[in-house]
Amino acid sequence: ARGMKPPETHKDLLERPVFAHMGTVTSDGAPLVNPMWFLWDPEAEEIKLTHITTRHNYRYMQREPRIALSIADPDNQYRYLQVRGVIDRIEDDPQGDFYNVLSNRYRGHPIEVKDKDVRVILHVRPTAFKART
Amino acid sequence: ARGMKPPETHKDLLERPVFAHMGTVTSDGAPLVNPMWFLWDPEAEEIKLTHITTRHNYRYMQREPRIALSIADPDNQYRYLQVRGVIDRIEDDPQGDFYNVLSNRYRGHPIEVKDKDVRVILHVRPTAFKART
Repeated sequence: ARGMKPPETHKDLLERPVFAHMGTVTSDGAPLVNPMWFLWDPEAEEIKLTHITTRHNYRYMQREPRIALSIADPDNQYRYLQVRGVIDRIEDDPQGDFYNVLSNRYRGHPIEVKDKDVRVILHVRPTAFKART
Repeated sequence: ARGMKPPETHKDLLERPVFAHMGTVTSDGAPLVNPMWFLWDPEAEEIKLTHITTRHNYRYMQREPRIALSIADPDNQYRYLQVRGVIDRIEDDPQGDFYNVLSNRYRGHPIEVKDKDVRVILHVRPTAFKART
């Protein structure tokens, strides 16, 4: 446990299968934002995301491990949680098992993970939470 | 006109009152993401956002004018448009008129703009569009 807890009022946004818009910084210092699946692990107090090593922003994360997530309530977009964090660890997902944890969470079923050779798990340690409305 | 047109297939995401998740870079190089109202101006081929000069990320934009926007279809979050762009110009909005253009677009009605003294219009010139599904 790392002692960084999300605000109780907005914890549901971490628990529901809502998309997170993830901000990263490119190698020349520009921002990028992409919608992502994620899983909040309350035991480890970390956010886990699935990613592939062949994407541009995977390279950028090697250089700049800080990321930000913006998670808005689909039922009320004015209510949102901003998470700032650091990628602490990147783990291989050789069978795509973690990918399918997220596929179950978001799609309701697993799929055949064709790109499992390049699938990884990003372990993000939150460093700040900001809740709105 | 600046000649950067959004993909026809995803132009609706610029035209509908959907929130954009805007990525900026802080003065120490970390990413930030916040949900924002925006307006696409097809004549000028620019995206306009309302902002206030008293927010942290307003200062960051002075140093790093590149931003990114992630705009997902509320009816299908897998369908999205990523915009990368540069803040070309910042204009005062002393009466809050532009704020209320956006209030009309998103809320359906104007409000009294109490912070009009610090309201500004960000003029963003898109430099790249990326459309998914």
